[in-house]
Amino acid sequence: MNQHLREKVDAHFDEMVAIRRHLHMHPELSFQEQETANYIIQFYKKLGVPVEANVSGYGLIARIKGSRPGKTIALRADFDALPIQDEKDVPYKSTVPGVMHACGHDGHTATLLIIGKLLWEMRDELTGEYVLIHQHAEEADPGGAIGMVQAGALNGVDAIFGTHLSSSHPTGMIGYRVGPAMAAVDSFEIKIQGKGGHGAHPHQTKDAIVIGSQLVMNLQQLVARRVDPTESAVLSVGSFVASNADNIIADTAYLNGTIRTFNKDVRETMEREFKRVIQGTEIAHDCTIELDYRRGYPAVVNHEKETLFVRNIAQDICDVTEIEATMGAEDFAYYLEEKPGTFFFTGAEPAEYAPHHHPKFDIDEKGMLVAAKVLLTAALDYQFVE
Amino acid sequence: MNQHLREKVDAHFDEMVAIRRHLHMHPELSFQEQETANYIIQFYKKLGVPVEANVSGYGLIARIKGSRPGKTIALRADFDALPIQDEKDVPYKSTVPGVMHACGHDGHTATLLIIGKLLWEMRDELTGEYVLIHQHAEEADPGGAIGMVQAGALNGVDAIFGTHLSSSHPTGMIGYRVGPAMAAVDSFEIKIQGKGGHGAHPHQTKDAIVIGSQLVMNLQQLVARRVDPTESAVLSVGSFVASNADNIIADTAYLNGTIRTFNKDVRETMEREFKRVIQGTEIAHDCTIELDYRRGYPAVVNHEKETLFVRNIAQDICDVTEIEATMGAEDFAYYLEEKPGTFFFTGAEPAEYAPHHHPKFDIDEKGMLVAAKVLLTAALDYQFVE
Amino acid sequence: MNQHLREKVDAHFDEMVAIRRHLHMHPELSFQEQETANYIIQFYKKLGVPVEANVSGYGLIARIKGSRPGKTIALRADFDALPIQDEKDVPYKSTVPGVMHACGHDGHTATLLIIGKLLWEMRDELTGEYVLIHQHAEEADPGGAIGMVQAGALNGVDAIFGTHLSSSHPTGMIGYRVGPAMAAVDSFEIKIQGKGGHGAHPHQTKDAIVIGSQLVMNLQQLVARRVDPTESAVLSVGSFVASNADNIIADTAYLNGTIRTFNKDVRETMEREFKRVIQGTEIAHDCTIELDYRRGYPAVVNHEKETLFVRNIAQDICDVTEIEATMGAEDFAYYLEEKPGTFFFTGAEPAEYAPHHHPKFDIDEKGMLVAAKVLLTAALDYQFVE
Amino acid sequence: MNQHLREKVDAHFDEMVAIRRHLHMHPELSFQEQETANYIIQFYKKLGVPVEANVSGYGLIARIKGSRPGKTIALRADFDALPIQDEKDVPYKSTVPGVMHACGHDGHTATLLIIGKLLWEMRDELTGEYVLIHQHAEEADPGGAIGMVQAGALNGVDAIFGTHLSSSHPTGMIGYRVGPAMAAVDSFEIKIQGKGGHGAHPHQTKDAIVIGSQLVMNLQQLVARRVDPTESAVLSVGSFVASNADNIIADTAYLNGTIRTFNKDVRETMEREFKRVIQGTEIAHDCTIELDYRRGYPAVVNHEKETLFVRNIAQDICDVTEIEATMGAEDFAYYLEEKPGTFFFTGAEPAEYAPHHHPKFDIDEKGMLVAAKVLLTAALDYQFVE
Repeated sequence: MNQHLREKVDAHFDEMVAIRRHLHMHPELSFQEQETANYIIQFYKKLGVPVEANVSGYGLIARIKGSRPGKTIALRADFDALPIQDEKDVPYKSTVPGVMHACGHDGHTATLLIIGKLLWEMRDELTGEYVLIHQHAEEADPGGAIGMVQAGALNGVDAIFGTHLSSSHPTGMIGYRVGPAMAAVDSFEIKIQGKGGHGAHPHQTKDAIVIGSQLVMNLQQLVARRVDPTESAVLSVGSFVASNADNIIADTAYLNGTIRTFNKDVRETMEREFKRVIQGTEIAHDCTIELDYRRGYPAVVNHEKETLFVRNIAQDICDVTEIEATMGAEDFAYYLEEKPGTFFFTGAEPAEYAPHHHPKFDIDEKGMLVAAKVLLTAALDYQFVE
Repeated sequence: MNQHLREKVDAHFDEMVAIRRHLHMHPELSFQEQETANYIIQFYKKLGVPVEANVSGYGLIARIKGSRPGKTIALRADFDALPIQDEKDVPYKSTVPGVMHACGHDGHTATLLIIGKLLWEMRDELTGEYVLIHQHAEEADPGGAIGMVQAGALNGVDAIFGTHLSSSHPTGMIGYRVGPAMAAVDSFEIKIQGKGGHGAHPHQTKDAIVIGSQLVMNLQQLVARRVDPTESAVLSVGSFVASNADNIIADTAYLNGTIRTFNKDVRETMEREFKRVIQGTEIAHDCTIELDYRRGYPAVVNHEKETLFVRNIAQDICDVTEIEATMGAEDFAYYLEEKPGTFFFTGAEPAEYAPHHHPKFDIDEKGMLVAAKVLLTAALDYQFVE
Repeated sequence: MNQHLREKVDAHFDEMVAIRRHLHMHPELSFQEQETANYIIQFYKKLGVPVEANVSGYGLIARIKGSRPGKTIALRADFDALPIQDEKDVPYKSTVPGVMHACGHDGHTATLLIIGKLLWEMRDELTGEYVLIHQHAEEADPGGAIGMVQAGALNGVDAIFGTHLSSSHPTGMIGYRVGPAMAAVDSFEIKIQGKGGHGAHPHQTKDAIVIGSQLVMNLQQLVARRVDPTESAVLSVGSFVASNADNIIADTAYLNGTIRTFNKDVRETMEREFKRVIQGTEIAHDCTIELDYRRGYPAVVNHEKETLFVRNIAQDICDVTEIEATMGAEDFAYYLEEKPGTFFFTGAEPAEYAPHHHPKFDIDEKGMLVAAKVLLTAALDYQFVE
Repeated sequence: MNQHLREKVDAHFDEMVAIRRHLHMHPELSFQEQETANYIIQFYKKLGVPVEANVSGYGLIARIKGSRPGKTIALRADFDALPIQDEKDVPYKSTVPGVMHACGHDGHTATLLIIGKLLWEMRDELTGEYVLIHQHAEEADPGGAIGMVQAGALNGVDAIFGTHLSSSHPTGMIGYRVGPAMAAVDSFEIKIQGKGGHGAHPHQTKDAIVIGSQLVMNLQQLVARRVDPTESAVLSVGSFVASNADNIIADTAYLNGTIRTFNKDVRETMEREFKRVIQGTEIAHDCTIELDYRRGYPAVVNHEKETLFVRNIAQDICDVTEIEATMGAEDFAYYLEEKPGTFFFTGAEPAEYAPHHHPKFDIDEKGMLVAAKVLLTAALDYQFVE
């Protein structure tokens, strides 16, 4: 990154902070981000940047064309908040009861807006085209990404880059990973319909607790026996609820849980074998089991070339670390199923650390500078990658 | 039963009904039966029958001595009600919201009071002594019987008889059974303390749902493998509650249930093996399991001689049927652990049938006549049994 | 039993012993008892008793008609031996290597032949008709009884009586039981066809050991949950064999076992639910399970009237005890499905005790006298039962 | 690799083949390789190379010192054969019935002997010292490597390199992997001592089949719940044997199996949790479980620097591929626990392919040339690595 560009980014730090804090004070829940979208539209309109609004909901796309033909590079930031009560004691605390930017999406948006401003200023000297994707609803299933992709957000795009600010990593570094970096997260809800009765007469019943317990035990062997040991999968039952007096045999039991995988085949295998076990259990117990098996976001699978490219250009900007894959989910995955690209983490550890989704979550706003520099450099330099 | 005595009982039917209906309108919960006890005391006082009050709570004992020495025979009636809202549409409906004589104890008491009145009237011609045990708190653990026994209610008693009016059997019959007739009913509450965590990181947790499911499955083999197939035992888990979001691994699970047996050795075996499985599960999972294993009433085991004696004298009064053992519980069991005796069922099926403990439960009051005749004859004739 | 008859039986003791010892020295396996059948035929022919031979195999029926019309009473004795090497050191030791009367059927036959001789001698004074059923193949599935019943052995019969000499009960007593006295014994053989592979690659296999273990665990809940706790059932897996090197995942596992019940409905339930669990397991694991479920003899269910009748007449002859039901099997069950009757045990404990089916098994031959007296009296007196 | 050296290796191909075929015809089992060791000793003695014999058994170490001081580099080849009958139809077929070089160790030895010969010829121009480790007993637990390490084979060594010829990879390539490349392989044998009995009387027994089945099911959750989903572990039960008649409850059951891991902590966790489940099962069932848990070789964990070094120098010699980790075992692991180094696979796919440990296993002998060139270059060039 040349010195000039680096200074330009640094010079916009105060503005970036102001934007981020404004958004932090006015958070909106997933799929309800009307005011946030308006704020972004106004920002671009004031500059004169053409914006496409209401892309599959409150999604927005700003497009900046350079003077010379080249590649089309997309950058993405999400802008929804979470149903959490802000418990920080700061001037920019959330003004909306029970809603909070507890995951840093406010910072993502501030970063991308400043990048947009800088690209717009440089447009006469630029090669290629820049697609700035402001995405709604990353936190809530089915997510905003899939709709924006279906609406054509990636049409003509050659590569896409995105980052997540992380309170768990020190400011001044980015973390990258080639291949699977975040998990495909599917979930299930089960209702076992047995037949209740008095605890003294089990033969007249179909005991939903015994059926459920057997199901939980039989599901354990999916990870143990049906998944390649060198691949990853996790199946966790989060709830098991069948509540009665101690002398009543349960007629129904409710279970729910999560299934996380990196590899597509393993994901298919888990779903197929899960359903097999459900079906076998129904038959063995002559009962009915309602299963709601919901596919969540796919795995974030970073492309090797783009990931190593980002690693290389970032080495000039900050520390760079290869990180472990995480079992968390992110709907950036949908973009990477369509186009080459990578999703990396940017350290933003604040003085008072709290994990993501915590009522005291905050970021070190300096992390936004690192994110802006790496994303901007990636967008500009990727033009010249073979 | 001689004709004269039979007619005497029949002549008191209206009084019996009046007493029963009074009690029905003024039910009191177990261990809170102050007014009911007072009512009984006044009844006996008015006649001049000596009564011992406050026997281990609100229990009462009336004693009637005949003019000639003989055996001491006890009869028992219980007088507590249940926390159920009376939904019958009858003039004698409960006047206490949420409390109801939904098991017939009002009828038992009316029956025994009339028996007491008749015995008192006949006292100059009687052989032996008659101990009329009016027992509180049959419905609620630990029951009134054990306390009354410990307070000496059975001192000097040669035999004891009792009955339960039953809406499920036709009026005009009694049901008897030699040996185990009602079950020992024990119960358990379990708290599994594992270690919670995120559904994606099972290795950092001790999954209380998996532990609980394994426990339920492992308990199944107690009945299947540890009990003599020609004996009876039932173990039912009534509740399994571990409630979380689908991506959270449960730190705690709560289970409760019931264990019912007839044979003392089987009861011991079930408790011993149950605790063994709990202990093994704790060790296998390196977790903590709190177990509250509560012994309820023992099995009602009718003595052969007294049971066949009642069968024989009853054949002259009503229909007589050998009934199956039931998995229900009754604290009359404690009396039979101390003295010879029997507990039988007396049919009292009303026009509009509802099961015991149901909001519309009622009895055919004519059943009280049968109960009174059998119990009175049993008491008088047992004097002459070798 | 009158004194005269008693003495007549006693007078034939030496002959009875001689017959029994001859048979003991020449045992024949089930369905191969040609010489034994010939021996019986010759015995009756010499006397002049009409015999029907080759009834459904080597079965035989002798019929003795009294001079006065009356009921037709059947008595039954079995005559097959077992594939066991006789290890006793007695003059009448088996002369056939590996074959032995290790269950007392030789004694049953000697007893019935002497009864036949006595009835034949008394035929001019007798009321009614006597059907002496000499049955082959009691020890081996499907047993001789069912064939003889189908061949008409019970045509016209009013009642049937039978006994088993027992080395486990003292000489001088019989044991009776109303209702279920011996179990229905069914058996199963299972072949689980999974898919083998290297222990390091479970995902490419269908692990027959895990499938089998799950099956065993899931079967435990049949007895625990699907059978009325006041009824009896037992399911035992006797073998589980899947043998490989420690780093090979098993492709097949073989299991076998036994299911024993007294009640017909419970027997049906066990078979139905067993097959359900098998089917559910196949589906859950996408594997093939071959099940060979074989019904053995039904339960021996003694008729109340005939059992109490035998108890009563036996009280005049020997000690009489009510015995517990046993989980063993006996194809006398088939006769009792067709006609009123009872099957009782006759004590014949020898000086040196060995259990039935043991290489040193023997009986106290005096037990045959008791058996003969009770059976003969039962046959004669049943004529006059209303 | 310079042209001269390459040609030198190629020039020795016939000799290499001759050595390999001699060894192939005279295979010896692990820990019994006396003649093979003598053959190697004679080879070096004829040249004049100093050899240390009988290192922890039949192990051998030849040492070649260059004229200039430098690093000490070890190369290792193993030389034991397998208890398999050679079924190939070739002139160099094994002459020993039931023993065969079915894993290519003959080729490893021929390769290292020729490398030794070349190094000895060049000794005046060499920098550093070369330690040629000829190791016995790689195929049989506990393996020869650990003893040779304990005997000081690696004293003063700076780095160690080794390879395995592979019939499953094409000739002309090597496969490398940084970090865990082969698994730690532990095994277990279990004897469950329950208490046998008749299938009809489970309550008098401790059913070893039910205990074993429960154990297998409970072990499934080790991989599913106790291992980090991003790590690898496999637990397979290979045998489950409890064999009885169908009406006998098993007193003993024998199980064995394998546990494979890459990560040391996961290996520790599996052993610890495995033993916990065993202990919990013993307590739950009041039975005795004998466990023989045997640690096999640790995981082969290749050092990053040496692995990438070999990759780089090999690119000049042959094709180079990053390979997946395998769940197989190799006692080269012990050397890498002590010193930097790497273990790679060298393609040697023959015309008629058979897998390793197969009676028709063979190698493409040309693969030895590749192995020799890469190992020799690695040894020489590592002198100049910083």
